[in-house]
Amino acid sequence: MTRPKSVSLREVGPRDGLQSEAPVETDAKVQLIEKLSATGLRRIEAVSFVHPKAIPQMADADEVWKRVRPVEGVRYSALAPNARGVSRALDHGFREIEVVVSASEKHNQSNLRRSVAESLAEFPPLLQQAHAANASVEVIVATSFGCPYAGDTDPAAVASIIEQLVDQGVDRVAFGDTTGMATPYRVQALLDAVKPVSKELPVLLHFHNTRGTALANILTALDYGVTEFDAAVGGLGGCPYAPGASGNVATEEVVHMLHDMGIDTGVDLDKLLEVAQFAQEMVGKELPSGVLKAGPRTRLSAL
Amino acid sequence: MTRPKSVSLREVGPRDGLQSEAPVETDAKVQLIEKLSATGLRRIEAVSFVHPKAIPQMADADEVWKRVRPVEGVRYSALAPNARGVSRALDHGFREIEVVVSASEKHNQSNLRRSVAESLAEFPPLLQQAHAANASVEVIVATSFGCPYAGDTDPAAVASIIEQLVDQGVDRVAFGDTTGMATPYRVQALLDAVKPVSKELPVLLHFHNTRGTALANILTALDYGVTEFDAAVGGLGGCPYAPGASGNVATEEVVHMLHDMGIDTGVDLDKLLEVAQFAQEMVGKELPSGVLKAGPRTRLSAL
Repeated sequence: MTRPKSVSLREVGPRDGLQSEAPVETDAKVQLIEKLSATGLRRIEAVSFVHPKAIPQMADADEVWKRVRPVEGVRYSALAPNARGVSRALDHGFREIEVVVSASEKHNQSNLRRSVAESLAEFPPLLQQAHAANASVEVIVATSFGCPYAGDTDPAAVASIIEQLVDQGVDRVAFGDTTGMATPYRVQALLDAVKPVSKELPVLLHFHNTRGTALANILTALDYGVTEFDAAVGGLGGCPYAPGASGNVATEEVVHMLHDMGIDTGVDLDKLLEVAQFAQEMVGKELPSGVLKAGPRTRLSAL
Repeated sequence: MTRPKSVSLREVGPRDGLQSEAPVETDAKVQLIEKLSATGLRRIEAVSFVHPKAIPQMADADEVWKRVRPVEGVRYSALAPNARGVSRALDHGFREIEVVVSASEKHNQSNLRRSVAESLAEFPPLLQQAHAANASVEVIVATSFGCPYAGDTDPAAVASIIEQLVDQGVDRVAFGDTTGMATPYRVQALLDAVKPVSKELPVLLHFHNTRGTALANILTALDYGVTEFDAAVGGLGGCPYAPGASGNVATEEVVHMLHDMGIDTGVDLDKLLEVAQFAQEMVGKELPSGVLKAGPRTRLSAL
């Protein structure tokens, strides 16, 4: 059990975070992405190209991305639910695209109005479309650790989805703890189940801190050799099922813990905390990040 | 690396929690202790017998404990800083007493106005006093993982204190993460350092969730075979060094994670959540507990 020496964090505040907050100005979104790009973060989920009626918070995605000045060395990605979204992402120059399916039938029906099998059947043409443009596709498997409607997710169901995704030739997969139902036990059970079928497929874990377990879950995944995690600056994005509850784990809490453990992320924590402060002012409410509130452990008090 | 099958939680909300909140009525404190006693928790730190000028929140400790109807099978403890406090605790029938020293000279000077060596020298007569009354004494080593004034705590300094405490014949020791500076790395370093000197001494860990790491720290300690942890219902008690920041890890977050991992605590989570709700109303502000806000992972939403 050797923990990795470095971890690749993907910042999802501008997309997954802001999607669950009250709408903010286009200019603030551009600033947020550009400020994050200067922290040492090497991956940023910037926007999603979805129908504005479905997610009004992302209605200005085209405008946001037109105005962002991308930083060399940072990988930007966009979420796209269908061929039209993939076309928009490709036209804007994105070469990393995310699509979504839920492990839970009930959640997939509620979220996407189709069955899991129907969602999976839509991926091959999207893959073809993206690959033809030299873009890669990641499939986010939502509710991988539990579903707010159906309860526990059977790791075997997730493994079955992964088998199909490997056959389809997807480039990466992410396991989403959509409503913060993961615990170290669920992480172990999932990783044990998918390991035999995921082969060389790069795996990323996406935890919400809704019930306080996010960093314990990341610690567990590190022991399995997982090196890719999502996080959102400040802990942007609440939980749509529980008003006032936390959503995405805060990027600075992840960076803070990993750095003290001697695990590199490439991120400048002080710069990141400045962006977390900006994000908090942008959404106009207190964000749940403990490191934002208390400062890092190295920040001393006067006697 | 086998994790324990059960864990012994000590609830510290009524003492360590309320000590850092605005003062509440005596009757509410009595109710809190009695409600906690009915949740399956087997250990409760009930009060401290300190000078009312030092900690006005505990000025009514005698009255509180006179009115509490203790529940058979629950171990109640009291904190006492000196011979007078130990006498009060013994007179009230307490048979578990806690005394405090900081691993950090700066913190001990600031908190107790004496050196670490002076604090340690005061323990033998207190031990004698308690043991003569068939009471046991636990030494809480504050700032074991870091000090807000001095920074990192050297695990060797903590080990040196433990060696002296073993020689003195103390009954138990607790390592306090007084301002939430612990990370999994610090937990490993501390436990590695104290293991050779702590011998058969029972060890308890006390984490604050100030920077989000409390459950990751507990997970790490479980892998070292530690089975005793402090926690405070609702996450009562903030951080005196960072207004608005979290203090004690919430008991229900610990119970919630451990139960899902198949580790028994004896606690009825639903009953505990009712007490967390009561505690929140008692202090009249939102407590930081995620499980209180979002409910346990088993609480499903309607479609």
